[in-house]
Amino acid sequence: MKPLVGVDWGTSSLRVARVDASGHAIEQREFPRGILTVPAGGFPQVFGEACGDWMKEPGAVALICGMAGSRQGWQEAPYAPCPAGHAEIASQLAWIDRGRIAIVPGLSFDAGGAPDVMRGEETAVLGVMKLLGVSDARIVMPGTHCKWVRVRAGRIESFATYMTGEFYAMLRQHSILARTLPAQDGELYEDAFLRGVDYAMHAGNLLHAAFTARTLSLFERLPQSAAPSYLSGLLIGEELRSQDLHAGDTLVLAGADKLTQRYGLALSHLRAPFRVLGQEATWLGLHAIAQSVKELA
Amino acid sequence: MKPLVGVDWGTSSLRVARVDASGHAIEQREFPRGILTVPAGGFPQVFGEACGDWMKEPGAVALICGMAGSRQGWQEAPYAPCPAGHAEIASQLAWIDRGRIAIVPGLSFDAGGAPDVMRGEETAVLGVMKLLGVSDARIVMPGTHCKWVRVRAGRIESFATYMTGEFYAMLRQHSILARTLPAQDGELYEDAFLRGVDYAMHAGNLLHAAFTARTLSLFERLPQSAAPSYLSGLLIGEELRSQDLHAGDTLVLAGADKLTQRYGLALSHLRAPFRVLGQEATWLGLHAIAQSVKELA
Repeated sequence: MKPLVGVDWGTSSLRVARVDASGHAIEQREFPRGILTVPAGGFPQVFGEACGDWMKEPGAVALICGMAGSRQGWQEAPYAPCPAGHAEIASQLAWIDRGRIAIVPGLSFDAGGAPDVMRGEETAVLGVMKLLGVSDARIVMPGTHCKWVRVRAGRIESFATYMTGEFYAMLRQHSILARTLPAQDGELYEDAFLRGVDYAMHAGNLLHAAFTARTLSLFERLPQSAAPSYLSGLLIGEELRSQDLHAGDTLVLAGADKLTQRYGLALSHLRAPFRVLGQEATWLGLHAIAQSVKELA
Repeated sequence: MKPLVGVDWGTSSLRVARVDASGHAIEQREFPRGILTVPAGGFPQVFGEACGDWMKEPGAVALICGMAGSRQGWQEAPYAPCPAGHAEIASQLAWIDRGRIAIVPGLSFDAGGAPDVMRGEETAVLGVMKLLGVSDARIVMPGTHCKWVRVRAGRIESFATYMTGEFYAMLRQHSILARTLPAQDGELYEDAFLRGVDYAMHAGNLLHAAFTARTLSLFERLPQSAAPSYLSGLLIGEELRSQDLHAGDTLVLAGADKLTQRYGLALSHLRAPFRVLGQEATWLGLHAIAQSVKELA
């Protein structure tokens, strides 16, 4: 196998890794050089600074996933439509330097007349499937834009985006709720968090439920320090409200510990079975895709 | 009847009127002096500047509704619990100058373990009831925080707040959607607006539906100029999704023309019966409350 450099190039950060023959990172680096920080034409230079030394190894190849393939990125890698697995993704790489550096396409899915999209998560999903050794799964990837992904027979069949993390940040900073919330999020208050989950499920509408983060404070029925936890519960509860939590395959939570912990708390509270994986799946996914591409394998 | 000065003192604006014996405004003034612009202790002066000349008339009295009665206002007028009508509201005035200047209390309603509140809308609701000459109604008051109010036997029985206007402004300015939306809202595109209404009802979850305002642009399936109309439809559709539109009394829309027009479009599209009133109800409501108070009548 050729020496593989994995690159996860998102909106706000750039992660690179030397990936071994089993798909694990031998060495990792992270930079605050998300695509929004890179001027037009500046991608080759930032790439060189991040992992140019690794690319000097004889035969080294690089595979990149994430927003680097968007219209505002290094080079556009058009969305591949669902269903898509290794084969579809591998056949639609956007080559920066043919045979040496390529970008993984994002995926699109048409749900009820409106398209949904992902970039980067498709790669992590393939890694999760490899980690689990299964070909069917429901995978939840919490974040600014949380993805709910359905995999069948090894291919991503459908998915849906929830702007949960972004709504939390907006309400936290830019709404009337900001007036009664403390400046810092502080620790997680589990009771307040689960109270938020329950209220969101009961109310069935975030436009209404969000107002209670204010009124509970007005009536001193929620300590100020616990209000961010309550709001977080409202948001995650609103997302979970629309899912069928008790049917089909066990949910797999994949993402940063701080978030998977919260989703796990909510799912346990709702008696929904789930398991948790970390963030290492992206390297495994890039490795799995590279293995499917003659020039990169 | 004593000469009545009506005052509608909200968060961002101050409206005053000389109200005649039938509850209509003889003369009106509006100032950008919402309570957020008034320094502590500054309320008497701003009040004097706005309508001090009218208060010099022999026997003149003033009745104030809105956020002036909040903790951050002129003087706190604690919330009166629902159900509440003229009698309950009139008996819980907060007097600034006994027999001469008073503030109308806001209302609270406890829905499923979390309180909801209004300040100012209770007065407009009483005015709407007087205008319609009925004692039962469902009234919708669109705005930053839209109120859905149920009146039975002349008393406000229950209500619910939807942060629809505020969510629109937040998503418009502070979310990833801001990147693809034009700088100005421009005119209303009815097709795009109703498409947003339909998608919100279909999706059943704003955290998911909002993302389509981005993806439809990405795939060039929504002209940029129509995207604000689509987003507005998503928000209003999300609010309407949670209402029973075809049961009970005809809906009454009361508020600014620009908003009642949009709600009316959506309701017509959903084949829900409704009627529309303007914003003059507040003066009628203040007049009706003043009539119930010996010192002000």
